[in-house]
Amino acid sequence: MIIQMKKQATKKDHERIVGYLKNRNLKIKDVRSENIIVFGVIGDTSSLDPHDLYAFEGVDKVTRVSTPFKRASRAFKPDDTIIAINDKIAIGDTNFAVIAGPCSIESEDQLRLTAKHLKASGAHILRGGAYKPRTSPYSFQGLEKEGLELLRKIADEFGMAAISEIPSADLIDVFEENVDIIQVGARNMQNFHLLKALSKSQTPIMLKRGLSATIEEWLMSAEYIMAGGNQNVILCERGIRTFEKYTRNTLDISAVLAVQELSHLPVIIDPSHAAGRWQMIEKLSLASLAVGANGLMVEVHPNPEEALSDGAQSLKIPKFDHLMTDLSRLTPYFGKVL
Amino acid sequence: MIIQMKKQATKKDHERIVGYLKNRNLKIKDVRSENIIVFGVIGDTSSLDPHDLYAFEGVDKVTRVSTPFKRASRAFKPDDTIIAINDKIAIGDTNFAVIAGPCSIESEDQLRLTAKHLKASGAHILRGGAYKPRTSPYSFQGLEKEGLELLRKIADEFGMAAISEIPSADLIDVFEENVDIIQVGARNMQNFHLLKALSKSQTPIMLKRGLSATIEEWLMSAEYIMAGGNQNVILCERGIRTFEKYTRNTLDISAVLAVQELSHLPVIIDPSHAAGRWQMIEKLSLASLAVGANGLMVEVHPNPEEALSDGAQSLKIPKFDHLMTDLSRLTPYFGKVL
Amino acid sequence: MIIQMKKQATKKDHERIVGYLKNRNLKIKDVRSENIIVFGVIGDTSSLDPHDLYAFEGVDKVTRVSTPFKRASRAFKPDDTIIAINDKIAIGDTNFAVIAGPCSIESEDQLRLTAKHLKASGAHILRGGAYKPRTSPYSFQGLEKEGLELLRKIADEFGMAAISEIPSADLIDVFEENVDIIQVGARNMQNFHLLKALSKSQTPIMLKRGLSATIEEWLMSAEYIMAGGNQNVILCERGIRTFEKYTRNTLDISAVLAVQELSHLPVIIDPSHAAGRWQMIEKLSLASLAVGANGLMVEVHPNPEEALSDGAQSLKIPKFDHLMTDLSRLTPYFGKVL
Amino acid sequence: MIIQMKKQATKKDHERIVGYLKNRNLKIKDVRSENIIVFGVIGDTSSLDPHDLYAFEGVDKVTRVSTPFKRASRAFKPDDTIIAINDKIAIGDTNFAVIAGPCSIESEDQLRLTAKHLKASGAHILRGGAYKPRTSPYSFQGLEKEGLELLRKIADEFGMAAISEIPSADLIDVFEENVDIIQVGARNMQNFHLLKALSKSQTPIMLKRGLSATIEEWLMSAEYIMAGGNQNVILCERGIRTFEKYTRNTLDISAVLAVQELSHLPVIIDPSHAAGRWQMIEKLSLASLAVGANGLMVEVHPNPEEALSDGAQSLKIPKFDHLMTDLSRLTPYFGKVL
Repeated sequence: MIIQMKKQATKKDHERIVGYLKNRNLKIKDVRSENIIVFGVIGDTSSLDPHDLYAFEGVDKVTRVSTPFKRASRAFKPDDTIIAINDKIAIGDTNFAVIAGPCSIESEDQLRLTAKHLKASGAHILRGGAYKPRTSPYSFQGLEKEGLELLRKIADEFGMAAISEIPSADLIDVFEENVDIIQVGARNMQNFHLLKALSKSQTPIMLKRGLSATIEEWLMSAEYIMAGGNQNVILCERGIRTFEKYTRNTLDISAVLAVQELSHLPVIIDPSHAAGRWQMIEKLSLASLAVGANGLMVEVHPNPEEALSDGAQSLKIPKFDHLMTDLSRLTPYFGKVL
Repeated sequence: MIIQMKKQATKKDHERIVGYLKNRNLKIKDVRSENIIVFGVIGDTSSLDPHDLYAFEGVDKVTRVSTPFKRASRAFKPDDTIIAINDKIAIGDTNFAVIAGPCSIESEDQLRLTAKHLKASGAHILRGGAYKPRTSPYSFQGLEKEGLELLRKIADEFGMAAISEIPSADLIDVFEENVDIIQVGARNMQNFHLLKALSKSQTPIMLKRGLSATIEEWLMSAEYIMAGGNQNVILCERGIRTFEKYTRNTLDISAVLAVQELSHLPVIIDPSHAAGRWQMIEKLSLASLAVGANGLMVEVHPNPEEALSDGAQSLKIPKFDHLMTDLSRLTPYFGKVL
Repeated sequence: MIIQMKKQATKKDHERIVGYLKNRNLKIKDVRSENIIVFGVIGDTSSLDPHDLYAFEGVDKVTRVSTPFKRASRAFKPDDTIIAINDKIAIGDTNFAVIAGPCSIESEDQLRLTAKHLKASGAHILRGGAYKPRTSPYSFQGLEKEGLELLRKIADEFGMAAISEIPSADLIDVFEENVDIIQVGARNMQNFHLLKALSKSQTPIMLKRGLSATIEEWLMSAEYIMAGGNQNVILCERGIRTFEKYTRNTLDISAVLAVQELSHLPVIIDPSHAAGRWQMIEKLSLASLAVGANGLMVEVHPNPEEALSDGAQSLKIPKFDHLMTDLSRLTPYFGKVL
Repeated sequence: MIIQMKKQATKKDHERIVGYLKNRNLKIKDVRSENIIVFGVIGDTSSLDPHDLYAFEGVDKVTRVSTPFKRASRAFKPDDTIIAINDKIAIGDTNFAVIAGPCSIESEDQLRLTAKHLKASGAHILRGGAYKPRTSPYSFQGLEKEGLELLRKIADEFGMAAISEIPSADLIDVFEENVDIIQVGARNMQNFHLLKALSKSQTPIMLKRGLSATIEEWLMSAEYIMAGGNQNVILCERGIRTFEKYTRNTLDISAVLAVQELSHLPVIIDPSHAAGRWQMIEKLSLASLAVGANGLMVEVHPNPEEALSDGAQSLKIPKFDHLMTDLSRLTPYFGKVL
């Protein structure tokens, strides 16, 4: 950590912050030129929040040198992590995992029809929302536990793995029973209460990036899960909120590369939520492959116009099939296996 | 709702969406010029998500006409809402409510010392974090239930009301027992599971705006609480996330005016989290008064440098006292009562 | 254009705006339900700014139906535009154009050495900054006219086309003499004085997207150039400004798809300015190919560490060579010709 | 400047960057702990762009310690700058300057009628656009030189100072003749060609903040003007672009405080462009006074509904009069003189 003092800081200001840090068993190196006083802080600063040090008068700027996350960092574990979902499917390394399914589970028939086609097209993991955190209290809120059980049943029927989004910590048991991956939604990325609870599970967690989360904050949320004991974290970039409104969110495709530099965890892309427009999904999926993501999560619906949620960003089955054909043609050129 | 079709949309595309809407008991008016087909949708569209209609081929643009929130809207209730906190304190109308206290409750002594000064300076409501959702799992996580009980005890000692942030729905009982206002933090603004649970309480809720929440989404979250039966919602603007990093967040002071146009709910400002710099708090507080907010929430700490969290944005007691002196001098000129 | 009136708008409010529009030879359709009054405006609304109509009391919301740009729109010209740069090079359609070179032209030797390698690797167009609009007045400001003449000379030596960024309208002549494409920088995207002047040239213009420009504003700037008579506009996405600071800007890769929906103009990607980190350029270039861009603009420097500007985002020559090998291997699978 | 090296950086990486810096007459202090290598760079680093140093392999993070601007900085000149506009009007210190007038100068009658009322209400400086950089080439583009001369004439008639926005460097002469303050628009804030030209003038410059400019970039643009010799720079905050679209831009009111910390230059607020809604202007103006701004720039039009531009954000004359009454009542309580 680097602490720069203001020009007008007094000797007492210097002493106070140096004293504070020394009390925490940190060593201080004084890097001083004519005009500027900078303290280098040496030792384990992971429990210090740089922001808090601005409380000291005379402090001008505090810069963290080491990353605030450890277990999630590439420095901690240089090799890519591969996460086994079941005995057939793993996410990471050269595998290009395709997760697909409807936004909401609406009925057994809808889910079976969708899953049948997805499986035939080559998708690995079936997604479906059972507890639906909609922005409006007047919208469809999901089939809840019944939906989750349907997901398990249909996934098993077609030999697929299952993933669904958890709304709160008290449902961990029912999720562990019914899915292979528990998804943490973008709006819950900093629901630390939920993250702590999930850190006690061993089920793989797919952690979506929050709408306005920095890459560092996203990895800190992964750290929460890992610090508690669950190392099976998959990251999912799904677009960030910006001033541009033509797309629902702005897909931050460079975030995949940033995560790969900073962390060993696998990272996939959800082009459906990023763009919010089904017309863009195929091309964004190919870009995701090209940039080096470990897979995709795509919304597919047999009849998007009648979907109870997110129809606008759902692919119809023939379009999904077309995407899978493209992917199976192109994955080898990018060193990936579909 | 206004639906504009693409130029190249077919007659069948027109018929399909019109049919879909008619099935939902909505009436359609066709507003057509040479080049453009627009459908006006008349009736109760509150359960339709405009985004979902993009699933229909041929749809170019969907615009909502009525607000998606009802109970929270000024159209629904034209007069300003005043929320009684206890028999002495109310938020709304000409009252200018001052909520103050430490970010985290650290000890009985710290809280009592702070509260004593706050009360003497004229603050109405004591704040203090008991369950601390910190971005790092390695930071101080709060005194939890013990902290909440301390808050109640000390608030009572000094005849103040009490507010604290709730981390999850299973703690509602303990919050109802110990605080007069339950705060929903910015990172939980769209934790719909929590909002639904709080809608069954009658305790006033302070709903902070999410870091990247639009004003409409913020009011939709208020609607969640109100739709379930709890009409006592106070809004709190606390800065939004933008590209500018000199301040921790960007205080969106115009949001107060927007809320007052769109809604009847009271709205206050938290300059501490918005700026993240104690040097700015006094001036931003005066601006909050001038713009017409219903109050303030300010972090105060007897010794910010030793605070276990958020010291950088905490006022020292003499500075808070100075702010209160200014406010008591200025409130009359803005038609407010401190 | 759709104009929605406030509930409390008076009959006189209605009459005033309707009268105003009728005076402009526009027809009005009244789409009215119990609660809401909406006027559909029919006719040529291109000279109306929707924002201006909020001046009328009683107006709640104004929505544009047709795009504000015409010549740049796909509706105006359904087929993709191909822009001939010289008798050998064209941008658009299946061509995948590669523009490469140093950020700044520093010397004849530096430029010749770079160009020699770029040509050998297969780049088509040589870029190089001569007038450098740096954020600091104390940084290197470019070789100016001499640099531009060097660019022409070296590009001719190696049979490449030439592009450079113009800083102001009074230099159009010297740019027309020395380059094949005139670049408008991101910070000048809404320098309308410059755009108007360029609209009188016939030299192709590469219009970079502004740091905070919406896709609509970007196309409106293209419209400025086209409205004045220059139809040869190439768009270049180069990242937008967001809250995320790990990358210099956030590459908005979906913007390529948006432009292709809304416009017939070719669009390329500049991954160097978007990411600001040379480590990301190769992968982002492959993603640009996969998403369907018409080409790339990449910064390359023989010795980035000694570059007088933008070394951080410049590829070294062997890395650029590696990128071109990858592109030549992959373009056929995406229906493109390098 | 602080340079942190990557853990995996080699000794050669260290030597290369240290050598590079030593060649520039900078001294290096090595601040090293077990895991981390940090170099403190001591000396005049103002011509180094921190971003450029990322070109060196092994560099992890570069942090500037001193501000990149000098003349604009408070460190360089601790006392507040007061800028004399003419022999009666000055901006800075306790003066609260009110600049008002129509967005566009439309006719002599419109301008005279407006100015007469503004003067009567107590405004000091008359604004009016003559060269209008509109986003659409099809919108009204201003009366140009004739408009500027009208502005001078009418301002003189009523004993007001005059301000107008300059579109390009070749018009400096005509602006110097006709206005007392030359305004640089938000979209030209980084038109460095224009800034350099203005640095040779002695006419005061009002520099609006760019839509996506950081406070540091804004001050760097001021530095451009000052470095060339014109020290008379007034800053104007006018809202930044964010995800929130209820207001046209987001007024960053904290920016006033940031500027006052970092710089000695006066700073005013333009609530008209920030909000884009006339309903919000009065309250935002009072907040601007309360936060400590040195004045206001407000759009006023005798008949906003017929304004040729920006009617939505223009105050009618009675509302402006009401605002001035409020300001004259309140300025004394904030230590300002209207």
